[in-house]
Amino acid sequence: MATETNTGTEAETAHAQAQSGDAQSGDAQHGDGQHYWYHSDKAALTRRLKRIEGQVRGIQRMVEDDEYCIDILTQISASTKGLQAVALNLLQGHLAHCVAEAQTSGDAAAAEAKVKEAADAVARLLRT
Amino acid sequence: MATETNTGTEAETAHAQAQSGDAQSGDAQHGDGQHYWYHSDKAALTRRLKRIEGQVRGIQRMVEDDEYCIDILTQISASTKGLQAVALNLLQGHLAHCVAEAQTSGDAAAAEAKVKEAADAVARLLRT
Amino acid sequence: MATETNTGTEAETAHAQAQSGDAQSGDAQHGDGQHYWYHSDKAALTRRLKRIEGQVRGIQRMVEDDEYCIDILTQISASTKGLQAVALNLLQGHLAHCVAEAQTSGDAAAAEAKVKEAADAVARLLRT
Amino acid sequence: MATETNTGTEAETAHAQAQSGDAQSGDAQHGDGQHYWYHSDKAALTRRLKRIEGQVRGIQRMVEDDEYCIDILTQISASTKGLQAVALNLLQGHLAHCVAEAQTSGDAAAAEAKVKEAADAVARLLRT
Repeated sequence: MATETNTGTEAETAHAQAQSGDAQSGDAQHGDGQHYWYHSDKAALTRRLKRIEGQVRGIQRMVEDDEYCIDILTQISASTKGLQAVALNLLQGHLAHCVAEAQTSGDAAAAEAKVKEAADAVARLLRT
Repeated sequence: MATETNTGTEAETAHAQAQSGDAQSGDAQHGDGQHYWYHSDKAALTRRLKRIEGQVRGIQRMVEDDEYCIDILTQISASTKGLQAVALNLLQGHLAHCVAEAQTSGDAAAAEAKVKEAADAVARLLRT
Repeated sequence: MATETNTGTEAETAHAQAQSGDAQSGDAQHGDGQHYWYHSDKAALTRRLKRIEGQVRGIQRMVEDDEYCIDILTQISASTKGLQAVALNLLQGHLAHCVAEAQTSGDAAAAEAKVKEAADAVARLLRT
Repeated sequence: MATETNTGTEAETAHAQAQSGDAQSGDAQHGDGQHYWYHSDKAALTRRLKRIEGQVRGIQRMVEDDEYCIDILTQISASTKGLQAVALNLLQGHLAHCVAEAQTSGDAAAAEAKVKEAADAVARLLRT
Protein backbone atom coordinates (compact mmCIF):
# COMPACT_ATOMS: atom_id res chain seq x y z
CA MET A 1 0.00 0.00 0.00
CA ALA A 2 1.24 3.42 -0.89
CA THR A 3 1.54 4.76 2.61
CA GLU A 4 3.50 1.78 3.81
CA THR A 5 6.03 1.56 1.05
CA ASN A 6 6.55 5.25 0.43
CA THR A 7 9.81 6.15 2.13
CA GLY A 8 10.83 9.00 -0.13
CA THR A 9 10.31 12.68 0.56
CA GLU A 10 8.85 13.51 -2.82
CA ALA A 11 5.14 13.77 -3.25
CA GLU A 12 5.51 12.59 -6.81
CA THR A 13 6.23 9.02 -5.81
CA ALA A 14 3.06 8.89 -3.80
CA HIS A 15 1.15 10.49 -6.64
CA ALA A 16 2.54 8.04 -9.12
CA GLN A 17 1.72 5.11 -6.88
CA ALA A 18 -1.69 6.42 -6.05
CA GLN A 19 -2.47 6.75 -9.72
CA SER A 20 -0.85 3.57 -10.98
CA GLY A 21 -2.96 0.82 -9.47
CA ASP A 22 -6.43 -0.12 -8.41
CA ALA A 23 -5.26 -1.05 -4.91
CA GLN A 24 -5.43 2.54 -3.65
CA SER A 25 -9.16 3.02 -3.76
CA GLY A 26 -9.43 2.41 -0.02
CA ASP A 27 -6.35 4.49 0.63
CA ALA A 28 -7.16 7.51 -1.42
CA GLN A 29 -8.77 10.38 0.46
CA HIS A 30 -9.30 12.53 -2.58
CA GLY A 31 -11.29 10.42 -4.96
CA ASP A 32 -8.54 10.54 -7.53
CA GLY A 33 -6.02 8.82 -5.31
CA GLN A 34 -4.02 11.97 -4.65
CA HIS A 35 -2.22 12.84 -1.46
CA TYR A 36 -1.36 16.36 -0.47
CA TRP A 37 2.29 17.38 -0.53
CA TYR A 38 2.57 17.18 3.27
CA HIS A 39 1.96 13.45 3.03
CA SER A 40 5.71 12.92 3.27
CA ASP A 41 5.96 15.24 6.28
CA LYS A 42 3.14 13.55 8.11
CA ALA A 43 5.25 12.03 10.86
CA ALA A 44 6.95 15.35 11.62
CA LEU A 45 3.68 17.31 11.51
CA THR A 46 1.97 14.79 13.75
CA ARG A 47 4.86 14.91 16.23
CA ARG A 48 4.62 18.70 16.45
CA LEU A 49 0.86 18.61 16.86
CA LYS A 50 1.15 15.95 19.58
CA ARG A 51 3.58 18.21 21.42
CA ILE A 52 1.09 21.09 21.21
CA GLU A 53 -1.69 18.79 22.40
CA GLY A 54 0.55 17.93 25.36
CA GLN A 55 1.09 21.64 26.03
CA VAL A 56 -2.65 22.28 26.06
CA ARG A 57 -3.08 19.36 28.47
CA GLY A 58 -0.29 20.88 30.55
CA ILE A 59 -2.25 24.15 30.72
CA GLN A 60 -5.24 22.19 32.05
CA ARG A 61 -3.01 20.72 34.75
CA MET A 62 -1.74 24.21 35.63
CA VAL A 63 -5.33 25.36 36.08
CA GLU A 64 -6.09 22.22 38.09
CA ASP A 65 -3.06 22.88 40.29
CA ASP A 66 -3.95 26.56 40.85
CA GLU A 67 -0.81 27.83 39.22
CA TYR A 68 -0.10 31.51 38.77
CA CYS A 69 -2.14 33.22 36.01
CA ILE A 70 0.91 34.79 34.37
CA ASP A 71 2.65 31.41 34.13
CA ILE A 72 -0.46 29.99 32.46
CA LEU A 73 -0.50 32.93 30.02
CA THR A 74 3.13 32.17 29.18
CA GLN A 75 2.21 28.58 28.37
CA ILE A 76 -0.71 29.73 26.24
CA SER A 77 1.67 31.99 24.28
CA ALA A 78 3.98 29.01 23.76
CA SER A 79 1.14 26.81 22.46
CA THR A 80 -0.07 29.56 20.15
CA LYS A 81 3.46 30.03 18.85
CA GLY A 82 3.66 26.28 18.22
CA LEU A 83 0.39 26.31 16.28
CA GLN A 84 1.55 29.28 14.21
CA ALA A 85 4.80 27.51 13.38
CA VAL A 86 2.81 24.52 12.10
CA ALA A 87 0.58 26.91 10.14
CA LEU A 88 3.57 28.63 8.52
CA ASN A 89 5.03 25.25 7.62
CA LEU A 90 1.75 24.18 6.01
CA LEU A 91 1.40 27.53 4.23
CA GLN A 92 4.89 27.34 2.75
CA GLY A 93 4.26 23.82 1.47
CA HIS A 94 0.86 24.85 0.17
CA LEU A 95 2.40 27.71 -1.83
CA ALA A 96 5.18 25.47 -3.10
CA HIS A 97 2.84 22.68 -4.18
CA CYS A 98 -0.90 23.31 -4.42
CA VAL A 99 -0.64 26.97 -5.50
CA ALA A 100 2.34 26.31 -7.79
CA GLU A 101 0.44 23.44 -9.42
CA ALA A 102 -2.46 25.76 -10.19
CA GLN A 103 -0.12 28.45 -11.48
CA THR A 104 1.71 26.13 -13.83
CA SER A 105 -1.51 24.50 -15.01
CA GLY A 106 -2.23 27.36 -17.36
CA ASP A 107 -5.70 27.79 -15.85
CA ALA A 108 -5.52 31.47 -14.86
CA ALA A 109 -8.84 31.46 -13.00
CA ALA A 110 -7.85 28.40 -10.93
CA ALA A 111 -4.48 29.99 -10.15
CA GLU A 112 -6.12 33.23 -9.06
CA ALA A 113 -8.60 31.34 -6.87
CA LYS A 114 -5.78 29.44 -5.17
CA VAL A 115 -3.86 32.64 -4.46
CA LYS A 116 -6.97 34.33 -3.09
CA GLU A 117 -7.66 31.32 -0.88
CA ALA A 118 -4.10 31.34 0.49
CA ALA A 119 -4.24 35.10 1.16
CA ASP A 120 -7.55 34.62 2.99
CA ALA A 121 -5.97 31.90 5.13
CA VAL A 122 -3.15 34.30 6.02
CA ALA A 123 -5.75 36.95 6.89
CA ARG A 124 -7.42 34.47 9.29
CA LEU A 125 -4.07 33.66 10.89
CA LEU A 126 -3.31 37.38 11.30
CA ARG A 127 -6.69 37.99 12.90
CA THR A 128 -5.97 35.45 15.62
CA MET B 1 -2.46 37.51 55.55
CA ALA B 2 -4.07 38.82 52.44
CA THR B 3 -6.95 36.36 52.55
CA GLU B 4 -7.90 37.42 56.04
CA THR B 5 -8.57 41.00 55.10
CA ASN B 6 -10.19 40.04 51.83
CA THR B 7 -13.64 41.56 51.91
CA GLY B 8 -14.37 41.17 48.22
CA THR B 9 -17.07 38.92 46.89
CA GLU B 10 -14.89 36.75 44.75
CA ALA B 11 -13.51 33.38 45.66
CA GLU B 12 -14.50 33.66 49.34
CA THR B 13 -16.16 30.29 49.36
CA ALA B 14 -13.12 28.57 47.97
CA HIS B 15 -10.85 30.50 50.31
CA ALA B 16 -13.03 29.71 53.29
CA GLN B 17 -13.05 26.04 52.40
CA ALA B 18 -9.33 25.97 51.93
CA GLN B 19 -8.85 27.51 55.35
CA SER B 20 -11.48 25.65 57.31
CA GLY B 21 -10.08 22.18 57.59
CA ASP B 22 -6.89 20.22 57.79
CA ALA B 23 -7.90 18.16 54.78
CA GLN B 24 -6.71 20.83 52.36
CA SER B 25 -3.04 20.63 53.14
CA GLY B 26 -2.58 18.42 50.12
CA ASP B 27 -4.88 20.65 48.14
CA ALA B 28 -3.17 23.94 48.75
CA GLN B 29 -0.61 24.71 46.10
CA HIS B 30 0.58 28.01 47.51
CA GLY B 31 1.99 27.16 50.89
CA ASP B 32 -0.44 29.48 52.62
CA GLY B 33 -3.52 27.67 51.42
CA GLN B 34 -4.45 30.36 48.91
CA HIS B 35 -6.11 29.69 45.61
CA TYR B 36 -5.99 32.02 42.66
CA TRP B 37 -9.16 33.87 41.70
CA TYR B 38 -9.86 31.52 38.79
CA HIS B 39 -10.36 28.69 41.30
CA SER B 40 -14.11 29.26 41.04
CA ASP B 41 -13.95 29.26 37.23
CA LYS B 42 -11.92 26.08 37.10
CA ALA B 43 -14.64 23.88 35.64
CA ALA B 44 -15.37 26.39 32.87
CA LEU B 45 -11.69 26.99 32.09
CA THR B 46 -11.00 23.26 32.02
CA ARG B 47 -13.95 22.69 29.70
CA ARG B 48 -12.66 25.30 27.27
CA LEU B 49 -9.15 23.90 27.36
CA LYS B 50 -10.45 20.37 26.81
CA ARG B 51 -12.31 21.62 23.73
CA ILE B 52 -9.08 23.18 22.41
CA GLU B 53 -7.22 19.95 23.14
CA GLY B 54 -9.89 18.18 21.10
CA GLN B 55 -9.41 20.68 18.27
CA VAL B 56 -5.65 20.05 18.23
CA ARG B 57 -6.33 16.31 18.13
CA GLY B 58 -8.75 16.98 15.29
CA ILE B 59 -5.96 18.75 13.38
CA GLN B 60 -3.80 15.64 13.80
CA ARG B 61 -6.62 13.56 12.33
CA MET B 62 -6.93 15.98 9.41
CA VAL B 63 -3.22 15.53 8.71
CA GLU B 64 -3.58 11.76 9.09
CA ASP B 65 -6.52 11.79 6.65
CA ASP B 66 -4.68 13.92 4.08
CA GLU B 67 -7.15 16.76 4.28
CA TYR B 68 -6.70 19.96 2.34
CA CYS B 69 -3.99 22.32 3.71
CA ILE B 70 -6.27 25.35 3.75
CA ASP B 71 -8.88 23.49 5.81
CA ILE B 72 -6.16 22.55 8.29
CA LEU B 73 -5.04 26.19 8.45
CA THR B 74 -8.62 27.18 9.20
CA GLN B 75 -8.71 24.74 12.12
CA ILE B 76 -5.38 26.04 13.40
CA SER B 77 -6.80 29.59 13.33
CA ALA B 78 -9.81 28.36 15.32
CA SER B 79 -7.61 26.69 17.96
CA THR B 80 -5.43 29.78 18.25
CA LYS B 81 -8.52 31.93 18.64
CA GLY B 82 -9.73 29.58 21.39
CA LEU B 83 -6.41 29.84 23.23
CA GLN B 84 -6.46 33.64 22.95
CA ALA B 85 -9.98 33.76 24.38
CA VAL B 86 -8.82 31.73 27.38
CA ALA B 87 -5.81 34.05 27.70
CA LEU B 88 -8.00 37.17 27.65
CA ASN B 89 -10.26 35.63 30.27
CA LEU B 90 -7.29 34.86 32.51
CA LEU B 91 -5.81 38.31 31.91
CA GLN B 92 -9.03 40.07 32.85
CA GLY B 93 -9.32 38.05 36.07
CA HIS B 94 -5.66 38.62 36.80
CA LEU B 95 -6.09 42.41 36.50
CA ALA B 96 -9.25 42.31 38.59
CA HIS B 97 -7.72 40.22 41.37
CA CYS B 98 -3.95 39.75 41.53
CA VAL B 99 -3.03 43.18 40.14
CA ALA B 100 -5.82 44.94 42.05
CA GLU B 101 -4.66 43.28 45.28
CA ALA B 102 -1.14 44.61 44.74
CA GLN B 103 -2.48 48.06 43.91
CA THR B 104 -4.65 48.30 46.99
CA SER B 105 -1.92 46.86 49.24
CA GLY B 106 -0.18 50.21 49.45
CA ASP B 107 3.09 48.62 48.32
CA ALA B 108 3.87 50.79 45.28
CA ALA B 109 6.83 48.71 44.13
CA ALA B 110 4.81 45.48 44.25
CA ALA B 111 1.97 47.16 42.35
CA GLU B 112 4.36 48.42 39.69
CA ALA B 113 5.95 44.99 39.35
CA LYS B 114 2.53 43.36 38.89
CA VAL B 115 1.55 45.87 36.19
CA LYS B 116 4.88 45.39 34.41
CA GLU B 117 4.43 41.62 34.55
CA ALA B 118 0.91 41.86 33.11
CA ALA B 119 2.05 44.18 30.31
CA ASP B 120 4.88 41.77 29.49
CA ALA B 121 2.38 38.91 29.29
CA VAL B 122 0.29 40.97 26.85
CA ALA B 123 3.44 41.65 24.81
CA ARG B 124 4.07 37.90 24.60
CA LEU B 125 0.49 37.29 23.48
CA LEU B 126 0.79 40.02 20.84
CA ARG B 127 4.01 38.53 19.54
CA THR B 128 2.33 35.20 18.86
CA MET C 1 -1.91 78.99 28.17
CA ALA C 2 -0.48 75.86 29.67
CA THR C 3 -0.09 73.94 26.45
CA GLU C 4 1.69 76.77 24.74
CA THR C 5 4.21 77.60 27.39
CA ASN C 6 4.85 74.09 28.69
CA THR C 7 7.99 72.89 27.00
CA GLY C 8 9.14 70.51 29.71
CA THR C 9 8.34 66.82 29.97
CA GLU C 10 7.14 66.94 33.56
CA ALA C 11 3.46 66.70 34.30
CA GLU C 12 3.88 68.58 37.53
CA THR C 13 4.30 71.96 35.94
CA ALA C 14 1.20 71.56 33.84
CA HIS C 15 -0.76 70.15 36.75
CA ALA C 16 0.30 73.01 38.95
CA GLN C 17 -0.74 75.49 36.28
CA ALA C 18 -3.98 73.70 35.58
CA GLN C 19 -4.85 73.77 39.23
CA SER C 20 -3.63 77.22 40.10
CA GLY C 21 -5.97 79.47 38.26
CA ASP C 22 -9.24 79.93 36.50
CA ALA C 23 -7.50 80.19 33.14
CA GLN C 24 -7.52 76.44 32.60
CA SER C 25 -11.12 76.04 31.63
CA GLY C 26 -10.21 76.19 27.95
CA ASP C 27 -7.12 74.10 28.48
CA ALA C 28 -8.54 71.27 30.51
CA GLN C 29 -9.75 68.37 28.43
CA HIS C 30 -11.36 66.61 31.33
CA GLY C 31 -13.63 69.18 32.85
CA ASP C 32 -11.77 69.03 36.12
CA GLY C 33 -8.47 70.20 34.72
CA GLN C 34 -6.92 66.74 34.88
CA HIS C 35 -4.36 65.38 32.49
CA TYR C 36 -3.86 61.71 31.84
CA TRP C 37 -0.81 60.06 33.31
CA TYR C 38 0.97 60.01 29.93
CA HIS C 39 1.01 63.80 29.97
CA SER C 40 4.57 63.59 31.32
CA ASP C 41 5.55 61.19 28.55
CA LYS C 42 4.04 63.32 25.84
CA ALA C 43 7.30 64.37 24.24
CA ALA C 44 8.55 60.78 24.09
CA LEU C 45 5.21 59.41 22.83
CA THR C 46 5.00 62.13 20.19
CA ARG C 47 8.55 61.42 19.06
CA ARG C 48 7.76 57.72 18.64
CA LEU C 49 4.56 58.45 16.76
CA LYS C 50 6.35 60.92 14.49
CA ARG C 51 8.88 58.22 13.69
CA ILE C 52 6.05 55.80 12.80
CA GLU C 53 4.41 58.51 10.68
CA GLY C 54 7.75 58.86 8.89
CA GLN C 55 7.87 55.09 8.36
CA VAL C 56 4.39 55.11 6.81
CA ARG C 57 5.46 57.96 4.54
CA GLY C 58 8.53 55.90 3.69
CA ILE C 59 6.26 53.03 2.64
CA GLN C 60 4.44 55.42 0.29
CA ARG C 61 7.78 56.37 -1.23
CA MET C 62 8.68 52.69 -1.66
CA VAL C 63 5.42 52.17 -3.54
CA GLU C 64 6.07 55.31 -5.58
CA ASP C 65 9.58 54.06 -6.42
CA ASP C 66 8.38 50.57 -7.42
CA GLU C 67 10.34 48.84 -4.70
CA TYR C 68 10.15 45.12 -4.15
CA CYS C 69 6.91 43.88 -2.48
CA ILE C 70 8.74 41.88 0.18
CA ASP C 71 10.79 44.91 1.21
CA ILE C 72 7.58 46.90 1.55
CA LEU C 73 6.06 44.11 3.67
CA THR C 74 9.13 44.25 5.91
CA GLN C 75 8.60 47.99 6.41
CA ILE C 76 4.93 47.44 7.17
CA SER C 77 5.90 44.87 9.82
CA ALA C 78 8.29 47.43 11.32
CA SER C 79 5.60 50.13 11.46
CA THR C 80 3.11 47.71 13.01
CA LYS C 81 5.69 46.69 15.58
CA GLY C 82 6.26 50.37 16.37
CA LEU C 83 2.54 50.97 16.86
CA GLN C 84 2.26 47.92 19.11
CA ALA C 85 5.16 49.13 21.23
CA VAL C 86 3.38 52.47 21.71
CA ALA C 87 0.17 50.58 22.53
CA LEU C 88 1.92 48.42 25.14
CA ASN C 89 3.47 51.52 26.67
CA LEU C 90 0.06 53.21 26.88
CA LEU C 91 -1.55 50.04 28.25
CA GLN C 92 1.03 49.67 30.99
CA GLY C 93 0.58 53.29 32.05
CA HIS C 94 -3.17 52.92 31.85
CA LEU C 95 -3.10 49.91 34.19
CA ALA C 96 -0.70 51.67 36.55
CA HIS C 97 -2.74 54.86 36.69
CA CYS C 98 -6.33 54.91 35.42
CA VAL C 99 -7.15 51.31 36.38
CA ALA C 100 -5.26 51.52 39.68
CA GLU C 101 -7.12 54.72 40.52
CA ALA C 102 -10.45 52.98 39.99
CA GLN C 103 -9.32 49.99 42.01
CA THR C 104 -8.20 52.04 44.99
CA SER C 105 -11.28 54.25 44.85
CA GLY C 106 -13.39 51.66 46.63
CA ASP C 107 -15.96 51.78 43.83
CA ALA C 108 -16.05 48.08 42.85
CA ALA C 109 -18.30 48.59 39.82
CA ALA C 110 -16.06 51.35 38.43
CA ALA C 111 -12.99 49.18 38.99
CA GLU C 112 -14.60 46.24 37.23
CA ALA C 113 -15.64 48.45 34.31
CA LYS C 114 -12.08 49.77 33.94
CA VAL C 115 -10.63 46.24 33.95
CA LYS C 116 -13.20 45.08 31.39
CA GLU C 117 -12.41 48.08 29.19
CA ALA C 118 -8.67 47.37 29.37
CA ALA C 119 -9.18 43.68 28.54
CA ASP C 120 -11.35 44.68 25.57
CA ALA C 121 -8.61 46.99 24.34
CA VAL C 122 -6.12 44.10 24.56
CA ALA C 123 -8.58 41.92 22.62
CA ARG C 124 -8.70 44.55 19.85
CA LEU C 125 -4.90 44.72 19.75
CA LEU C 126 -4.70 40.91 19.54
CA ARG C 127 -7.22 40.83 16.72
CA THR C 128 -5.06 43.11 14.60
CA MET D 1 0.09 53.28 -23.27
CA ALA D 2 0.82 50.30 -21.12
CA THR D 3 -2.02 50.81 -18.69
CA GLU D 4 -4.55 51.23 -21.46
CA THR D 5 -3.74 48.20 -23.51
CA ASN D 6 -2.79 45.89 -20.69
CA THR D 7 -5.94 43.89 -20.04
CA GLY D 8 -4.33 40.78 -18.64
CA THR D 9 -3.18 40.20 -15.10
CA GLU D 10 0.39 39.63 -16.18
CA ALA D 11 3.06 42.23 -15.83
CA GLU D 12 4.77 40.99 -18.97
CA THR D 13 3.08 43.44 -21.29
CA ALA D 14 4.21 46.35 -19.19
CA HIS D 15 7.65 44.81 -18.91
CA ALA D 16 7.97 44.42 -22.63
CA GLN D 17 6.88 47.97 -23.28
CA ALA D 18 9.10 49.36 -20.57
CA GLN D 19 12.03 47.67 -22.21
CA SER D 20 11.18 48.52 -25.79
CA GLY D 21 11.77 52.24 -25.88
CA ASP D 22 14.28 54.80 -24.71
CA ALA D 23 11.57 56.99 -23.18
CA GLN D 24 11.40 54.87 -20.07
CA SER D 25 14.93 55.37 -18.87
CA GLY D 26 13.85 58.09 -16.44
CA ASP D 27 10.83 56.06 -15.45
CA ALA D 28 12.49 52.78 -14.75
CA GLN D 29 13.35 52.21 -11.12
CA HIS D 30 14.98 48.83 -11.52
CA GLY D 31 17.84 49.39 -13.93
CA ASP D 32 16.25 46.94 -16.33
CA GLY D 33 13.12 49.02 -16.74
CA GLN D 34 10.92 46.64 -14.76
CA HIS D 35 7.90 47.63 -12.70
CA TYR D 36 6.35 45.48 -10.04
CA TRP D 37 2.82 44.23 -10.53
CA TYR D 38 1.38 46.78 -8.07
CA HIS D 39 2.44 49.55 -10.46
CA SER D 40 -1.14 49.68 -11.74
CA ASP D 41 -2.51 49.78 -8.18
CA LYS D 42 -0.21 52.55 -7.14
CA ALA D 43 -2.87 55.23 -6.80
CA ALA D 44 -5.07 53.00 -4.63
CA LEU D 45 -2.17 51.82 -2.47
CA THR D 46 -0.93 55.37 -2.00
CA ARG D 47 -4.40 56.52 -1.03
CA ARG D 48 -4.67 53.82 1.62
CA LEU D 49 -1.23 54.60 2.99
CA LYS D 50 -2.00 58.31 3.10
CA ARG D 51 -5.11 57.51 5.12
CA ILE D 52 -3.00 55.47 7.58
CA GLU D 53 -0.47 58.29 7.76
CA GLY D 54 -3.38 60.59 8.64
CA GLN D 55 -4.50 58.14 11.34
CA VAL D 56 -1.03 58.11 12.88
CA ARG D 57 -1.02 61.92 12.83
CA GLY D 58 -4.45 61.77 14.46
CA ILE D 59 -3.00 59.63 17.26
CA GLN D 60 -0.34 62.30 17.83
CA ARG D 61 -3.10 64.89 18.14
CA MET D 62 -4.96 62.67 20.62
CA VAL D 63 -1.81 62.48 22.75
CA GLU D 64 -1.33 66.24 22.39
CA ASP D 65 -4.94 66.82 23.46
CA ASP D 66 -4.67 64.49 26.48
CA GLU D 67 -7.32 62.13 25.21
CA TYR D 68 -8.26 58.95 27.04
CA CYS D 69 -5.70 56.12 26.78
CA ILE D 70 -8.26 53.53 25.72
CA ASP D 71 -9.47 55.76 22.87
CA ILE D 72 -5.88 56.11 21.71
CA LEU D 73 -5.44 52.32 21.87
CA THR D 74 -8.54 51.94 19.72
CA GLN D 75 -7.03 54.26 17.11
CA ILE D 76 -3.75 52.34 17.21
CA SER D 77 -5.67 49.10 16.57
CA ALA D 78 -7.38 50.78 13.60
CA SER D 79 -4.06 51.93 12.11
CA THR D 80 -2.53 48.49 12.62
CA LYS D 81 -5.53 46.90 10.93
CA GLY D 82 -5.11 49.33 8.03
CA LEU D 83 -1.43 48.43 7.65
CA GLN D 84 -2.26 44.71 7.76
CA ALA D 85 -4.88 45.15 5.05
CA VAL D 86 -2.28 46.83 2.83
CA ALA D 87 0.15 44.02 3.64
CA LEU D 88 -2.38 41.33 2.71
CA ASN D 89 -3.12 43.15 -0.53
CA LEU D 90 0.58 43.31 -1.38
CA LEU D 91 1.08 39.67 -0.38
CA GLN D 92 -1.75 38.47 -2.60
CA GLY D 93 -0.39 40.39 -5.57
CA HIS D 94 3.11 39.16 -4.81
CA LEU D 95 1.93 35.54 -4.85
CA ALA D 96 -0.06 36.09 -8.02
CA HIS D 97 2.78 37.77 -9.88
CA CYS D 98 6.33 37.57 -8.53
CA VAL D 99 5.99 34.08 -7.00
CA ALA D 100 3.94 32.79 -9.94
CA GLU D 101 6.53 34.13 -12.36
CA ALA D 102 9.28 32.20 -10.55
CA GLN D 103 7.12 29.08 -10.44
CA THR D 104 6.34 29.11 -14.15
CA SER D 105 9.95 29.97 -15.06
CA GLY D 106 11.02 26.37 -14.68
CA ASP D 107 13.80 27.39 -12.29
CA ALA D 108 12.92 25.23 -9.27
CA ALA D 109 15.50 26.79 -6.98
CA ALA D 110 14.28 30.33 -7.77
CA ALA D 111 10.68 29.24 -7.21
CA GLU D 112 11.56 27.67 -3.86
CA ALA D 113 13.46 30.78 -2.79
CA LYS D 114 10.48 33.00 -3.66
CA VAL D 115 8.09 30.81 -1.67
CA LYS D 116 10.45 30.74 1.31
CA GLU D 117 10.77 34.53 1.15
CA ALA D 118 6.99 34.98 1.05
CA ALA D 119 6.50 32.59 4.00
CA ASP D 120 9.14 34.49 5.96
CA ALA D 121 7.31 37.75 5.25
CA VAL D 122 4.10 36.19 6.59
CA ALA D 123 6.00 35.03 9.69
CA ARG D 124 7.15 38.63 10.29
CA LEU D 125 3.58 39.90 9.88
CA LEU D 126 2.31 37.26 12.33
CA ARG D 127 4.95 38.18 14.87
CA THR D 128 3.75 41.78 14.96
